[in-house]
Amino acid sequence: MQLHLMTWQDVESYLQHSKGIIIPIGSTEQHGPNGLLGTDVICPEEIAKRMGAEDDVLIAPTFNVGCAQHHMAFAGTITLRPSTMMAAIMDWVNSLYKHGFTHFYFLNGHGGNVPTINAAFAEIYAQWSLDANDPSGAPLTCYLQNWWELPGIFDLCNKMFPQGHGAHATPSEVSLTYYAYPEAVKDVTMTPKIAPNGPIKDAEDYKRRFPDGRIGSDPSLATVELGEKIMDASVKSLSKSYKAFLNAR
Amino acid sequence: MQLHLMTWQDVESYLQHSKGIIIPIGSTEQHGPNGLLGTDVICPEEIAKRMGAEDDVLIAPTFNVGCAQHHMAFAGTITLRPSTMMAAIMDWVNSLYKHGFTHFYFLNGHGGNVPTINAAFAEIYAQWSLDANDPSGAPLTCYLQNWWELPGIFDLCNKMFPQGHGAHATPSEVSLTYYAYPEAVKDVTMTPKIAPNGPIKDAEDYKRRFPDGRIGSDPSLATVELGEKIMDASVKSLSKSYKAFLNAR
Amino acid sequence: MQLHLMTWQDVESYLQHSKGIIIPIGSTEQHGPNGLLGTDVICPEEIAKRMGAEDDVLIAPTFNVGCAQHHMAFAGTITLRPSTMMAAIMDWVNSLYKHGFTHFYFLNGHGGNVPTINAAFAEIYAQWSLDANDPSGAPLTCYLQNWWELPGIFDLCNKMFPQGHGAHATPSEVSLTYYAYPEAVKDVTMTPKIAPNGPIKDAEDYKRRFPDGRIGSDPSLATVELGEKIMDASVKSLSKSYKAFLNAR
Amino acid sequence: MQLHLMTWQDVESYLQHSKGIIIPIGSTEQHGPNGLLGTDVICPEEIAKRMGAEDDVLIAPTFNVGCAQHHMAFAGTITLRPSTMMAAIMDWVNSLYKHGFTHFYFLNGHGGNVPTINAAFAEIYAQWSLDANDPSGAPLTCYLQNWWELPGIFDLCNKMFPQGHGAHATPSEVSLTYYAYPEAVKDVTMTPKIAPNGPIKDAEDYKRRFPDGRIGSDPSLATVELGEKIMDASVKSLSKSYKAFLNAR
Amino acid sequence: MQLHLMTWQDVESYLQHSKGIIIPIGSTEQHGPNGLLGTDVICPEEIAKRMGAEDDVLIAPTFNVGCAQHHMAFAGTITLRPSTMMAAIMDWVNSLYKHGFTHFYFLNGHGGNVPTINAAFAEIYAQWSLDANDPSGAPLTCYLQNWWELPGIFDLCNKMFPQGHGAHATPSEVSLTYYAYPEAVKDVTMTPKIAPNGPIKDAEDYKRRFPDGRIGSDPSLATVELGEKIMDASVKSLSKSYKAFLNAR
Amino acid sequence: MQLHLMTWQDVESYLQHSKGIIIPIGSTEQHGPNGLLGTDVICPEEIAKRMGAEDDVLIAPTFNVGCAQHHMAFAGTITLRPSTMMAAIMDWVNSLYKHGFTHFYFLNGHGGNVPTINAAFAEIYAQWSLDANDPSGAPLTCYLQNWWELPGIFDLCNKMFPQGHGAHATPSEVSLTYYAYPEAVKDVTMTPKIAPNGPIKDAEDYKRRFPDGRIGSDPSLATVELGEKIMDASVKSLSKSYKAFLNAR
Repeated sequence: MQLHLMTWQDVESYLQHSKGIIIPIGSTEQHGPNGLLGTDVICPEEIAKRMGAEDDVLIAPTFNVGCAQHHMAFAGTITLRPSTMMAAIMDWVNSLYKHGFTHFYFLNGHGGNVPTINAAFAEIYAQWSLDANDPSGAPLTCYLQNWWELPGIFDLCNKMFPQGHGAHATPSEVSLTYYAYPEAVKDVTMTPKIAPNGPIKDAEDYKRRFPDGRIGSDPSLATVELGEKIMDASVKSLSKSYKAFLNAR
Repeated sequence: MQLHLMTWQDVESYLQHSKGIIIPIGSTEQHGPNGLLGTDVICPEEIAKRMGAEDDVLIAPTFNVGCAQHHMAFAGTITLRPSTMMAAIMDWVNSLYKHGFTHFYFLNGHGGNVPTINAAFAEIYAQWSLDANDPSGAPLTCYLQNWWELPGIFDLCNKMFPQGHGAHATPSEVSLTYYAYPEAVKDVTMTPKIAPNGPIKDAEDYKRRFPDGRIGSDPSLATVELGEKIMDASVKSLSKSYKAFLNAR
Repeated sequence: MQLHLMTWQDVESYLQHSKGIIIPIGSTEQHGPNGLLGTDVICPEEIAKRMGAEDDVLIAPTFNVGCAQHHMAFAGTITLRPSTMMAAIMDWVNSLYKHGFTHFYFLNGHGGNVPTINAAFAEIYAQWSLDANDPSGAPLTCYLQNWWELPGIFDLCNKMFPQGHGAHATPSEVSLTYYAYPEAVKDVTMTPKIAPNGPIKDAEDYKRRFPDGRIGSDPSLATVELGEKIMDASVKSLSKSYKAFLNAR
Repeated sequence: MQLHLMTWQDVESYLQHSKGIIIPIGSTEQHGPNGLLGTDVICPEEIAKRMGAEDDVLIAPTFNVGCAQHHMAFAGTITLRPSTMMAAIMDWVNSLYKHGFTHFYFLNGHGGNVPTINAAFAEIYAQWSLDANDPSGAPLTCYLQNWWELPGIFDLCNKMFPQGHGAHATPSEVSLTYYAYPEAVKDVTMTPKIAPNGPIKDAEDYKRRFPDGRIGSDPSLATVELGEKIMDASVKSLSKSYKAFLNAR
Repeated sequence: MQLHLMTWQDVESYLQHSKGIIIPIGSTEQHGPNGLLGTDVICPEEIAKRMGAEDDVLIAPTFNVGCAQHHMAFAGTITLRPSTMMAAIMDWVNSLYKHGFTHFYFLNGHGGNVPTINAAFAEIYAQWSLDANDPSGAPLTCYLQNWWELPGIFDLCNKMFPQGHGAHATPSEVSLTYYAYPEAVKDVTMTPKIAPNGPIKDAEDYKRRFPDGRIGSDPSLATVELGEKIMDASVKSLSKSYKAFLNAR
Repeated sequence: MQLHLMTWQDVESYLQHSKGIIIPIGSTEQHGPNGLLGTDVICPEEIAKRMGAEDDVLIAPTFNVGCAQHHMAFAGTITLRPSTMMAAIMDWVNSLYKHGFTHFYFLNGHGGNVPTINAAFAEIYAQWSLDANDPSGAPLTCYLQNWWELPGIFDLCNKMFPQGHGAHATPSEVSLTYYAYPEAVKDVTMTPKIAPNGPIKDAEDYKRRFPDGRIGSDPSLATVELGEKIMDASVKSLSKSYKAFLNAR
């Protein structure tokens, strides 16, 4: 159940039985020689879409540009300043809260978003904490879950790719996108086969360390079939994780 | 050529021969009893996607939540504050400009976005106008085009729907979304058949005047077939309009 | 009845019988070889002042610097960033609302202000739309009226100046300022007599296209006498327009 | 020489021989039972206008709404938040600096503006101090002068009004406005004749302490004639003060 | 009683009998050849700490970086933009107000902070003045006191240092820091013995006028013993001033 | 070498041989029944101070109020909004960079600061990434190190406190503060001896789950002696970690 394919009356009905929503959130940034600029958008969006269809859970539009400052030396990357991203997340949550939603589950596709999303949550809660006239706390709950850290997924990926899973432009995320967009499969020889590792600093430093954009990975291992397996596991894991979030005391 | 389905090397190659990009920009907001919350996102996204594929023009990710304050009394609507939207548009443009893009064509799906997009353009240009150390002007050009005002389209829609085209939740935009998502076609009886007209003010006032969300329209006239005709005409018109933008002195 | 020439007790009395106020809003920017930098300030200020005196309507101080980024290549132009202008308009409205005003009629003198003023209105309304604790909508109404689009005025101007009315530094606005400040009348030969037309982009681009600042106009046609006629018609039209605004359901 | 009554070519010529400009800055706020809401705008505006005419000095438009939070319990008062006022002052200065102005003399009419104007100056200078790429300092100078502290003026006012000059809604400022707008003269009996003194805190506290708005003053002493004397002295003093500012090493 | 050395239960108890708190606020900036970069932090911090211990008054953490733009040409100086400082002061006050504090006494160590602190107070109060739904005023009071202007202190310092007290890097403030940190005493020959006087503008201008950072002072006169005397007098004076603040109607 | 106890000439000398600086950063927030509100400030400040003295490394003033929204239901807690904290960190770094510092090592005392500090780093780097005129990347490096994650420290603490180390108000951090401030040692019986565990959400939720403020810990195990051991180990580990940071390619 994707919000953008529903009418407002559909959402009103949904709110009769649930106050929860899943918001896929990603980033538009380079993903190495055979990975798509939309990788971090596609992964959470596709997992959430499938899970939402199976479980009758509402999926918000995808927040599709995030914090990718460190990828800005690669063409096509788009980044928000963290302060902009926080303001936008706050507006999304406050809008949906106004309609009655109280449980906001962000399914995230990009590690670089994590600090800013968490800072945005604190900024949202602070609307109540710093409001002198409000005796009680925030009446809503925000939750951040990286898809690759859904229970069971990280282990699965490491088992699939014992060598060359790495940290950016990983074969697991590329597989997911290939499964979603088989027409995007690319056959690229990686040089070196496994990309170097190292710390992430500023954009220029990133490009110097990781000239083709990958970190520690060999995404030429990605296939549609492996993507399907990761997808199936992720959808199942998300279903459990989301229910746990809704039911948490 | 959708940026999110390309690699960074693809974008680098594209920049060798073009500095232009089309950014679909919409809004997530109610569109009456049979229109989708994503209508204003889907229309420019789908037109741009088709035109970009035919003409080898780069299409950015869709800016999918805009200024919908006046629709906030209807469930599912999400709005940015105009100040947030301006900051985000500025970040998108500045990111892409850093890679070498200089011509930004925003294909817009929502009338309520127009003021804020234009204000954002002025804010972007002002980076140069108010920079004491910069003797020359802004080295980039931003352009706003509402899809329904693409040359020829408004006339086409009025001819198709001589009665009940209206101003919000129009049969033309609903037709476009039905063509893109035939599974979303809804058979809803409109009461009254043609919605009332009136001014747009605050959200609550809007709902009082237009209880089911439509303004002046009868979107039950929408069909997949009419959507296809509008789509074809819009793609052709966008192609010409974009070329004119690139070639303008 | 100009607010700045009244005491606070006068305003308190006024509020007993009316919650409406007119706010002239303009821009400080070049207006070609014989037009004043204050043209867009003077026009709405003088129209409003006269109408307020006749109708016992309260006229706020004039918001005298607006969004003139595109005129910044001409000496003397002052511009706010759109984000600054929005914050200021919000403060003006919130201040006056606190005293009891609920109907804000902005009489605008500058086309370039339109996007930002409308964005400011949405930002003001969003204070209520995004306030989770507020069940009802915005208790105030903001309205934007360009003086040259007051009913009847555009036709009058086009009839007066069938050739060379143009789009910036028009003979009609220059005439209005000459009528208000006869000592400012300037006899300048325009070269070419009618300025070129074209699109408005960044400041430097503007100066390249329109070297003396005019767009499509021949302001040497401006006279005190014509200014008086436009003034009288505008005052009458404003009177009707403002009453309609107050009485709108 | 008022900028808003000049053309851009006039300003360009002025810049050939001077880089200085005077910006009258005031506040729209209550001034007791016989003082105008525009008092703090009118005083610096009228002094500057006369001085500018005599000395061929450029006078900017008047910054006419300032920081009047503490007067907000009185109808008609309009205030900016200090953060808004700082942004606006920065935009005015940066706009004028872009044209070549380097010496900004703010003639202020309102004590409550002083902190924010000075904070704005620091924010403006910090554009250079915090710009890592700029080896030298700010290439412009901002100066704040309260009109009533122009050399000689405070003594003159105290001599004129040995009793009841006070601190807000003073007979000297009211006299100045009466001289500028003789039609605004009001004959009001003050009760008590001299208003109480006390500290300034929040708006509600202000109204409790100073129920008619005055602090320590008896503005019924104000006359057109005394206003003329203060005006003449202020114009002369401003002339000297401005020259000293321009010539300061 | 320093807040950072107390538990939350201690503060809860304190709030049973007092709603007041003292916030030392300073700046990290150059203080000439023998003065510490922390001078303006240490002075209010040490005075408040001693007074708080004697009088059982709660002392907040020290706000230790302020507005020092004009000292930025000297190594080690750290400055906030005024807009940042205002936001931070607002957050401190709003946090403490949420716990029940209503009386905020800022003991300031730096003249350059004065405008921004006062602007912050107005911004804080404006939360109530501009809140349409709040019929009463701000329920808290903020007060700014420079330590060197505590009753009796300025006279004492001038008597101690009849020559060379000056305006920045004064022997009185340096003495205070020497008393607090005797290990920091430095024996430096000042050249010239008494520093020049002059106006404060931008950072670069400051360094040109005052090459070693001092203004009008001879801080080589500073001693631990004199610091002790100033400390004792300041602690006593603060005690009285704070009580007066709490008891003011 | 604490910056606030040095002169500007000392810092200028330091910059001749090093461009690195350590910035202790903490939070002012409840730390349970026997922990100080300043715990998260004191820990990094005291570790850094000792290490700086031994290694001749410059220690900046402590950033002493951070992101403590989730502790706001406990008296004495002070929080910045994340957006304010980001602006302040940016100002600190930009100020110090202007003097020549290029390596910024933030020694952090509070887990809740981590997202905002990392977001601030991205915002700082984005000054360069989004600056169209700057062809190279950020010329500075920011690094975040939580003191309890310094190599070896977490293991040491877990060994010391095999039961009841927990996640907030831990015996290790309380021990460190007791070592630094022995007069602050408190003998409090904890009920229950080991606090409950659970997730961190909004402030009110936090207080409901963790009524005395502790999470999973038994801080009654804290002693001055254990604090000394943690201190010594932390100082040594910081020394190595900082050198590694400076020497990283």
